[in-house]
Amino acid sequence: MSPVQVPRPASEAIASAIAARDATIPAEYKLPKSFAIPKNPSVILQTSGLLSPAELAIVNLDATALAEQIAGGKVSSVQATTAYVKAAALAQQATNCIVELFPGEALERAAFLDAELAAGRNHGAFHGVPVSIKDHIDVKGHDSPSGFLSFVGKMVAEEDAALVKILRDAGAVFYCKTTNPQSLMHLETDSYLGETSCPFNTALTSGGSSGGEGAILGFKASPLGVGADIGGSVRSPAANCGIYSFKPSVGRLPNMGMVYPIGPKGYEGILGTHAPMGRSVRDMELYMRVFAAAQPWLREPGIEVKPWREVERKTKLRIGVLYDDGVVRPVAPIRRALDTAVAKLKAAGHEVVEFAPFKSAENWDIISKLYWPENGAMVRQHLANSGEPMRPLTEWIISQAGNKERSWAELTKLVAQRDYFKYDLGVHWHNAGVDVVLSAVGPTPAPEHGTARYWNYTSYWNLANYPAGVFPTGLSVDPALDAEDGSYTPRNDSEAFVYNNYDAKVSVEAPICLQVIGFAGLEEETLSAMGTISDVVQK
Amino acid sequence: MSPVQVPRPASEAIASAIAARDATIPAEYKLPKSFAIPKNPSVILQTSGLLSPAELAIVNLDATALAEQIAGGKVSSVQATTAYVKAAALAQQATNCIVELFPGEALERAAFLDAELAAGRNHGAFHGVPVSIKDHIDVKGHDSPSGFLSFVGKMVAEEDAALVKILRDAGAVFYCKTTNPQSLMHLETDSYLGETSCPFNTALTSGGSSGGEGAILGFKASPLGVGADIGGSVRSPAANCGIYSFKPSVGRLPNMGMVYPIGPKGYEGILGTHAPMGRSVRDMELYMRVFAAAQPWLREPGIEVKPWREVERKTKLRIGVLYDDGVVRPVAPIRRALDTAVAKLKAAGHEVVEFAPFKSAENWDIISKLYWPENGAMVRQHLANSGEPMRPLTEWIISQAGNKERSWAELTKLVAQRDYFKYDLGVHWHNAGVDVVLSAVGPTPAPEHGTARYWNYTSYWNLANYPAGVFPTGLSVDPALDAEDGSYTPRNDSEAFVYNNYDAKVSVEAPICLQVIGFAGLEEETLSAMGTISDVVQK
Repeated sequence: MSPVQVPRPASEAIASAIAARDATIPAEYKLPKSFAIPKNPSVILQTSGLLSPAELAIVNLDATALAEQIAGGKVSSVQATTAYVKAAALAQQATNCIVELFPGEALERAAFLDAELAAGRNHGAFHGVPVSIKDHIDVKGHDSPSGFLSFVGKMVAEEDAALVKILRDAGAVFYCKTTNPQSLMHLETDSYLGETSCPFNTALTSGGSSGGEGAILGFKASPLGVGADIGGSVRSPAANCGIYSFKPSVGRLPNMGMVYPIGPKGYEGILGTHAPMGRSVRDMELYMRVFAAAQPWLREPGIEVKPWREVERKTKLRIGVLYDDGVVRPVAPIRRALDTAVAKLKAAGHEVVEFAPFKSAENWDIISKLYWPENGAMVRQHLANSGEPMRPLTEWIISQAGNKERSWAELTKLVAQRDYFKYDLGVHWHNAGVDVVLSAVGPTPAPEHGTARYWNYTSYWNLANYPAGVFPTGLSVDPALDAEDGSYTPRNDSEAFVYNNYDAKVSVEAPICLQVIGFAGLEEETLSAMGTISDVVQK
Repeated sequence: MSPVQVPRPASEAIASAIAARDATIPAEYKLPKSFAIPKNPSVILQTSGLLSPAELAIVNLDATALAEQIAGGKVSSVQATTAYVKAAALAQQATNCIVELFPGEALERAAFLDAELAAGRNHGAFHGVPVSIKDHIDVKGHDSPSGFLSFVGKMVAEEDAALVKILRDAGAVFYCKTTNPQSLMHLETDSYLGETSCPFNTALTSGGSSGGEGAILGFKASPLGVGADIGGSVRSPAANCGIYSFKPSVGRLPNMGMVYPIGPKGYEGILGTHAPMGRSVRDMELYMRVFAAAQPWLREPGIEVKPWREVERKTKLRIGVLYDDGVVRPVAPIRRALDTAVAKLKAAGHEVVEFAPFKSAENWDIISKLYWPENGAMVRQHLANSGEPMRPLTEWIISQAGNKERSWAELTKLVAQRDYFKYDLGVHWHNAGVDVVLSAVGPTPAPEHGTARYWNYTSYWNLANYPAGVFPTGLSVDPALDAEDGSYTPRNDSEAFVYNNYDAKVSVEAPICLQVIGFAGLEEETLSAMGTISDVVQK
């Protein structure tokens, strides 16, 4: 009866948002309360008994193979979607990776596509294939809270993002939205919904910001995911969760309809791009091909007119290896993976040279400031609107910009520094004469929750705007092989933080992935080389 | 003996700069003082008797034909360069289009290329072809005063601009730098060097800002020129001087090494591009092909990976005609040219529809502000450094931005408005369903010196970032056909200014050109359509 509207405490609003999310998981796919989630929860895909053998076979396919099975009539889209809805329900219970599961809508769409196929109408490369998608990308009729409590219920999309339209036109079946962190700017995924975990070790973060995608794909609860990357946001979760991802240069994929809640429209200092995450290099290529074929440049200003170029796989690559960026040396398991990869690549006849680090610290100094032209004012406002506390990683990343407001002249100068850096890096790259660079994705495998602070192995290539992909090496952390003995003396605070927080015993079973980087705009050559390299390394 | 450095008055410095420029014209190519420059000075190419019949034949060729003649051994590069040096000396005396002529260096280079060819080494598509270039583009060893008195003698380039390197690698012979206006931001060419005139009527401006190129090409004193365009700067002079030009979308041609003296590095609100100016559509295509083949994306960050796409000429185009942009209706001769073109295009089987104007005034409101993020502070500083007075057109164009400083937030909002405009225009374009738009290049043929104020027929497509070319219709102003009778009531001050200043008798013999615009990034389709349209219209 009070005329004064008393704002609900954030804790209540959070509990309510979590309950609403949980309610989107079908009751019949919920594990009994007595079911203990093991430390490596990926096993419950099998042990829960929820998926039939046929469904387990389906979730073992990559998107290309699944699309072939559907197009060939061997699997229906309804069967595939059912399998993935079940798997996603388990993945949510194992890793906390879902913002909304919408099986009803997905199964209706799958049934429609099955009927279309029966009538001879194949909609495209992803006909009938379930696709998971990161929360901050608009899917018509669904909310996009994008990691902010204050957005919950207020961001229901009136239309699909441009990329969603294109994937739908190619036959995709969207069935869930997946978690991203508060502010979208963590290499972890922690928000009002809690933390998303690595599907192979719940003590570890799934990575971020597309960490819901990392977890669901690592769990085999999605055949193909859509993430986005402005500093490592598809590569960190791919690395942490043992899958593939590919960040193209900005300008190739259409971005309209993605929520960017941390800076004003019209800001161009640093731009991100959506990007595929998945289960094979060929799926990354298929995703890129589908987008190029859709000619997004006809609809979205600023997208390059760039049909997919068919390139031949080189039999002999010249591969530069970035063993150490000069600021934070990767820890033991990553070094082991790099050394193993180098040995195999040399044995396979490729030329491997060291790629010298180039202005790593300068790069971070520029990009970390470009992320926050207004010192995080918009993030603070979104948090104030609900009373949601600022999470430590949000505070940390904003603080990297120096906690100050900058003038137009200062910000313009930073953009100029960005461009000089890019020019200088191009010279450095061409002097090295490499086809691609092979590198860590981060200094460690999936870190413990709350400790992912070193971005530069990935964000470096965002400032550069070079394409970069991630592939699993097939290795995972083994405390017997991957301990650090404490003999290494860190060169700086960032490195000390990483070495102090790494413990092979804690990181046990974390997948080990590597990154392949190509020259700016050469997506085709980069993916081709990543295919060659991952084939060799995984053998 | 005084220890105090007394600055030299601007008038003395100007006289000295003009004298230095005049001294670069070989004395033997100077007309006798008694030689009266006629009102249509283009005739002196013939009447002066300076060029031999063989040389006159050379200067009648387009760049493609000249390159063929040189490659085939029918003409040497030294012969061609000699012919063009003579013609350029005349063009300077007729129109005031030269900043520096450097015959010595050019003839040495030509002799080298002749020897190379004799030894079986053809350097590329422009082997031996003289190329003229706008002043603010760096050519190694030459000054780039770029229209500012304070820059004279202080801007000697230590290396070639990226584009100059590429053209040289393809065999080009640079032989002169040509005038541009104070601030680079006039659709005329007036600076401390005076005014550059239309080669067909000295009462009229050559246009700008690449007005030296317009004049020299219209005079047939260059086979191919390099200009640059951020608001119409290759299209205005092409139109005023009866030649061809082609502004691609920004992002395709490398810009490094161009002097941009009016805003800070790192500013991205509105960007220009260098662009070819010349004597045929095929020359515009050749220029674009040479640049694409040079893979500039490997050297300059931000340049799109975009090989040239071979497109077939459409036999039936759907052409939208912009008869009136809704703000300033073109004057009589332009309307006559449009009507004539439409009749011929229809007769040739093309589909011609009206293209409705779309947010013309809004476009100008955005771009005119984006030109001057600092309210012209840098221009004022360059002028203050020498005491050079601000020219009226400089003051006018800066004033279009509202004479105010803007904050980062305001400028970012303008960029967002730019992007919304581009999106909306794309929808408008696709709804019209046209291959290209045919339009005026400006509301009038070459205007009288000092009166070129209406930019929007060209600058509109800079904000949009659509490719746009100019071609001569073969018509020129005829007072008997092209008078305005005063019966038209202007809708606004801009239109009143244009109609008050237009007089068919004053504009007699001014060439009439039209503009062909294609969708963003579709350079290939745009040039192909311009080829088809110009062939039909010129018949």
